[in-house]
Parts: sequence; structure tokens; C-alpha cells
Amino acid sequence: LSTQKAKLFRREYLDLHVHEQAQIFAELDQTLRSRLYRYLTAVEVGDMFDAIEEEPEEVVKYFQEMPISYAAKVIDEMYTDNAVDILAYAQNKDLTHYLLALPEERSAEIRSLLHYEDKTAGALMTTEYVDIFASQDISSAIKDIREEAADAELIYYAYVVTDDNELIGVVTLRDLLTNPEETLISEIMTDPVISVPVDEDQAEVARKVRDYNFVALPVIDYANKLVGIINVDDVIDVIDEENAGEYSGLAGVDTEETPEDPFRASLKRLPWLVILLFLGMSTTTLIDHYEGLISQASILAVFVSLITGTAGNAGTQSLAVAIRGLSDSEEERRSGWKTIISELSTGLLTGIVTGLTICVLVGLWKNNWILGSVIGVSLATAIIVATVAGSIIPLVMDKIGVDPAVASGPFISTLSDLTSVLIYFNIAHQFLNFFINA
Amino acid sequence: LSTQKAKLFRREYLDLHVHEQAQIFAELDQTLRSRLYRYLTAVEVGDMFDAIEEEPEEVVKYFQEMPISYAAKVIDEMYTDNAVDILAYAQNKDLTHYLLALPEERSAEIRSLLHYEDKTAGALMTTEYVDIFASQDISSAIKDIREEAADAELIYYAYVVTDDNELIGVVTLRDLLTNPEETLISEIMTDPVISVPVDEDQAEVARKVRDYNFVALPVIDYANKLVGIINVDDVIDVIDEENAGEYSGLAGVDTEETPEDPFRASLKRLPWLVILLFLGMSTTTLIDHYEGLISQASILAVFVSLITGTAGNAGTQSLAVAIRGLSDSEEERRSGWKTIISELSTGLLTGIVTGLTICVLVGLWKNNWILGSVIGVSLATAIIVATVAGSIIPLVMDKIGVDPAVASGPFISTLSDLTSVLIYFNIAHQFLNFFINA
Repeated sequence: LSTQKAKLFRREYLDLHVHEQAQIFAELDQTLRSRLYRYLTAVEVGDMFDAIEEEPEEVVKYFQEMPISYAAKVIDEMYTDNAVDILAYAQNKDLTHYLLALPEERSAEIRSLLHYEDKTAGALMTTEYVDIFASQDISSAIKDIREEAADAELIYYAYVVTDDNELIGVVTLRDLLTNPEETLISEIMTDPVISVPVDEDQAEVARKVRDYNFVALPVIDYANKLVGIINVDDVIDVIDEENAGEYSGLAGVDTEETPEDPFRASLKRLPWLVILLFLGMSTTTLIDHYEGLISQASILAVFVSLITGTAGNAGTQSLAVAIRGLSDSEEERRSGWKTIISELSTGLLTGIVTGLTICVLVGLWKNNWILGSVIGVSLATAIIVATVAGSIIPLVMDKIGVDPAVASGPFISTLSDLTSVLIYFNIAHQFLNFFINA
Repeated sequence: LSTQKAKLFRREYLDLHVHEQAQIFAELDQTLRSRLYRYLTAVEVGDMFDAIEEEPEEVVKYFQEMPISYAAKVIDEMYTDNAVDILAYAQNKDLTHYLLALPEERSAEIRSLLHYEDKTAGALMTTEYVDIFASQDISSAIKDIREEAADAELIYYAYVVTDDNELIGVVTLRDLLTNPEETLISEIMTDPVISVPVDEDQAEVARKVRDYNFVALPVIDYANKLVGIINVDDVIDVIDEENAGEYSGLAGVDTEETPEDPFRASLKRLPWLVILLFLGMSTTTLIDHYEGLISQASILAVFVSLITGTAGNAGTQSLAVAIRGLSDSEEERRSGWKTIISELSTGLLTGIVTGLTICVLVGLWKNNWILGSVIGVSLATAIIVATVAGSIIPLVMDKIGVDPAVASGPFISTLSDLTSVLIYFNIAHQFLNFFINA
């Protein structure tokens, strides 16, 4: 490209898979990008943009570099769902220009998709599907599919609709190829069809595709009319996104950060660190409250970290299990009370075993069985509380509509620190006479 | 089923999607299962077993409940990759029985797949693909696909091979339908084909399918011969598995545990808790070493948790970013040194900002700026160390071939606890005179 040999560049670049084209494109600077727009047709750039992996707010800037009519052609060539993802980040003025430059039908399609809320089935779906009627026979259906094949994002499923566009069945291309040509669609179609409503949460969409092993899932509106389909490749992106969210929440950091630049990485991490520092200050203030106790029996201070740390680990385990549990589908979930009772029993068992272990360890180490018992009982109690809290907090957050994956890891640690310190010093206080500094 | 009405049961059960059939099957007890085997043909049960989501070590037990010839027929009907996953857990004696009862060709196929190592492309792939020759025209290729459609797990891609079974191209069913019937495959096929070697790690397979948005990926042996294909639905399971592994590692718990039974849940969590308790004891022993210091200046004890906790958070952030970074493909990764230097800079920045914050907080709170400075400097140093350690540890684990996702979360906490305590008390010791208990 830098040698300005248009023909050679076209031959080599277009020989690559679009995913690889997009990777190279992402490395170009603005001068080279402008040259690329001149060397390639809008159709070729549109195909490549369908495979682009950069964030939509970045991709939208590329459109601004192109002449408006060229940008409109690129948008026209792209699959509607991908184009809409990007245009959602366009400035209103630019968006109007693009929509005006597009054919009327495409412009209407894009405008209707722009309305759907982020992270719902509507925002994920594309309108380029194949629909057929139950009264057609296989050979006429295959003819229809052939005609739509160039535009449709997915041709392996054909959705059967009524005259009113109501979804009544589905046939796979496999069904069409393995049955005699004169068979009626109504005879071989699968019904009822597994589908999702247009306002369904994207996590639920991902579960359905995963459980049923579909390549695509139809999307219907409130009146059971087919409005779009969601492809498995978009679902994979959703699964990655949801998993990254849970993971980031546990670590208290956005792992999708671009770690290239330490300064920007710091800016991303610092807010969490400082918030957690302030949360940690609450534990510190509480410990400070017991400073008198510590100055009388400094041995008590030695075990604070151990108790808060271990209870924190137990809380994190219980939290992690609870959050993964929430990502199961509605039917598979256990009721809230059942979860809490089960976690309470788990907390009791793990608390008692761990408490006994530390009691023996400390008893032998310090040859002080009262100290051992105090530590053991405190730890057991702290673990029980942390385990139950770890299962309740995500349930409550889910109920009040907050995403339980957001930073719940660090929060559970702080909470369990506070309760552990309270439990520990209160129990220790009862036995103070035994540990007074010699 | 419990009413023993075979006909009615067959009609209602077979009307369900196989995924729903499998869900119901999982709820049955042994008596009802035996009855189901009598009511349904082996072909019907085989289709349902393809959709089963239980762990293979559970499913293999169902085979033992069936007469051997029935079990063999079920296995014969299943897709080879699914059957092999389950048979990998069969006892040798049973396995021999099943293999003997199967048609020779199927038995050989299954035996060859049983050899591949777990979590590689070979273990994920199925042998039921469609292959065609470059010299065929489209109409003869479509005829071949029609014939194989009933058995092949995926018919939307046809792989083009030489007489020697070497993989040289791929055509999609879409390509076949949108081109004139007399076109030669060699004219429309895509080459070279993106493929994976049979011993490729499953995480890399998942990345390729995700990046290229494929519905299936061909698997080749060392001589570039086509040996199988991997379907997108199996890749989704891999993505879930890999993500769950990372997540579990951070939390120190296997989140795939069946949480139904508190006793078994405890057994799963306890080993980690107890190991972490022993790791925590190392920190405690270290703090104990400084008990003399604490008894002279009990105020020091108040801040131990805050420093270890905050440094632990910084370490976890850095670790989470590093682990997600390792899951990028080889080409996208930065070199180890670049990562470490970048994390060092991030640690410096976050450490200094957080240190200054706590210095001001403690200075104002206790009206003791020397205490504030000691805490601030200790915290800053501890954060820098933890941040760098969080990025080095997974790199080292990856180098020596240990999966860095395994429980690295709790390990980094312990390590950062130890270094934080060392740093804190050594710095505090220098300024001891300023905090001696009044």
C-alpha cells in the first residue's frame, strides 16, 4: 500500500480472509487509510468492515474520513446488524447524511433497528434472513433461498411465516436437501419454533443458542411476528462480553482495558483502588476502635489478617458460585431461600472444619489453647457469615436490578473484613485476661 | 411415562426439541429410564443423547443400564464426537463390548478418535463432514451433499480434498447455491483454507472460530490431510469452559460444582480454604515476628489489614489483566518484558496516587503526619510490588507449562500479603520513636 501500487495491493489484499484484511486495516494510519478507500470499492470495504473487531465508537470515525456517498455505500454493503452497531455511535448530523444517501428501504431498516435498547435481542439481530411460506414446495423454497442468498446473512435456516409475517415454523437447508422436491414446506417444517422476544436480555439469548445448539435464533415481536434473526457469531461475542464482565467484577478491574499505555491503564484501575481504599478505611477505623485491646494484648493483632483473609476467601467462593448460578436460565435456578439455606449449611461445615484446624495449629504453635479456641471460634463464625453474605448479596443486587457481577468481589471482601473484625475482637474481649501482655 | 402409556408418551415426548427431551430425561430415576429405553428406539434415544448436557462420566452410566446391543445402537446413532466424549469414561470391559457390537467402520472411527488428548482439536472434532473434489461441478457436489446430509453433523461447508485426502479448499452451501450448476468447484472454492492441526489447544481453536466467525473449522494432520471438523456449538462449550476456569481460578473455587448438596459443596471448597489458611499462616507468622513492635506501638496494628488488602487488590487487578492477556492469540500478545515494564509504570502511578491519598487521610485523621507518611510510603511500595508480581506470576506459570488460571488469585493475595507486611514493618521500625505507646 505504501508503494502506491494499486493493482498489486488489490490482488494481495483481497486474497486475504476479511478477518485478516480487518487486522491489517487496524494498523494503518490516516493517510494509508484514505489511500485504501481510493484503491478499494465501497463493496470491498463494506465486506471488510463486517469483520472488523475494533469497538464501534472507533469504527464510526473511519466513516467520517470517507466521502459521504462512499460511506453510505459501505454501510449499504454491510450486514444491517453490524452497520447499526456502529451507527449507534455516529453524531446526529453524520447519521442524517448517511441515512439520506442510502436507498429508502435500507435507511428505514437501519432506522428501525437503531431504536432497540442495547444488550437486548433487538440490538443483536439482523433483518437479513430468509422467509418462506408453508404452502410452498421444496423446489420453490430453494429457488427463493438462491435469490436471497447473496444478501442474507444466514441461509441455512429458512423461517416459515404467514401472510401477516407471523412466525409459524422453521426448516433447515438440510431438511430441504434431504426430502423430495415436491414436498410441501408445511409437511417438513419444525413447529413450534424456539424464538426470543425482541426485548429479551442478551444473556438469555446466548443461553438459548448454547443450549439448543442453534446456528441462528429467530426474534419475534409482541404479536409473534418475525422481526429478525440472531447469528451464532454475534452470540459468541455476547458470551465473551458477559464472561469478561463477571471476571472483571471479581477482580475489581475492567480487563477489556487496552493495556498498551501505563498511564491510561492506571486511570482505569485507580478509581477502583481508591474506592476500595476508602472501604478498607472502614475496617481500619473499626480496628482502631479496638486499639486499647491490642495495646493490652498485642498477640491479638497477629491474627487479624488471617481471620479477615480466610473469611474473605470463603465469601468469594460463595459469591463466585452464586454469580455463576445467576447466569443459569430462569428454570434451572434454585429459589433464593433454598440457596441461602444450602449456603448456610456449607458455611457451617467449612467454618467448623477450618476453625478446628486453626485452633489446633495455634494451640500447638503458641502452646495456648485458649488463644487457639478464640481464634478458631472467631474464624468459624466469620466464615459462616461471609459464606451466607456471599450468596445473599448477588441475590439482592439481582432483585433490585443491579448487575451482581459489578465489583461484587471487592465489596464482599470489605463486608467480610468488617464482620470478621467485629466478631474476633468481641470474642477475644471476653477472654482478655488470658492474653494480657506479660 | 409413569402412567405406562407408551403411545401417548412417545407422541408427546418426541414432539419436544431434543434439548427439552434431554432435560426431562435427566430428571428420571432408574426405573423410569429403563421404561423409556423400552418405549423409544435406539435411534430416538441416540438423537436425544446428542443433546444431553450432563457430564460424560454421568452419561456413561446410562449405557450400563441398557442391553449392550441397544447401547451400541444408541452410540452408532450419535455423532461421533459426542459418543467419543462419553466413551472416554467407559470402563475397558464395557468399551470392548460396545465396540464389538458396532459396525466395523464406526468402531474404527471411534477407536481412532479415542486416542486424541483431552482439550485438543482432535478431542473436539467429529468425522462426519462432507468432502468433495475440486474437479466436480456444482450439481454433482450438491448431489453428494444430499446423500451425506442424513449422517453429516454439518452440511453447510463442503471441504475440497485431493485423492490423497489433502485439504485444498472449502466451499459453502451458499457458494453452491448462488453459482451456475455447471461451475467447477475449483473455480469457486476458497483457498487456502483456515484450519487447525489436530493437536492444537482447544483455546486456540475457540479463538479462530470466534475471530473468523466460522460455523465449523477443519482439522488437519501433520501431512495436511483432513481428519475432521469442529462445530461452533462445541466451540461455545469450550469458551464457557475456559472462561469458567479463569473465573474459578480467581475465586479459588470450582464454580462448576453442583451446589445441590451442601456437604459435597463443602468438600469441594474446603481443600482450597485449608490450603489458603496455611498460606495465610505464613503471613501470620511474619506478623508474629513483629509482635514486639506492635506491643510498643499498637497503632501500627491498626493499618496492617488496610495495607495488605489494598496491595492485594492492586495485585489482583494486574493479575486479571495479565491472565486475560494470555488468552489472546500468540500474535496479539506483547512480549514478557514489555508487559513487566508497562505494569511497573502502572504500579508506580497507582502506588503513588493511592499512597498520597492514604497519607493525607491518616495524617488528618490521627493528626500525625509521620504516621501518615509511613503508611503512605509502605502502601505505595506494596502496591508497586504487588502490581509487578501480578503480571510476572502468570507469565512464569505459562512458561513452565502450568495453567496460570488455576487459583492464581488466592496465591497472589498471599504473596502480596507477605511482601506488604515486610515492607510496612521495616519502614515503620525506622520511625518507631514517633509512635511508641504513650
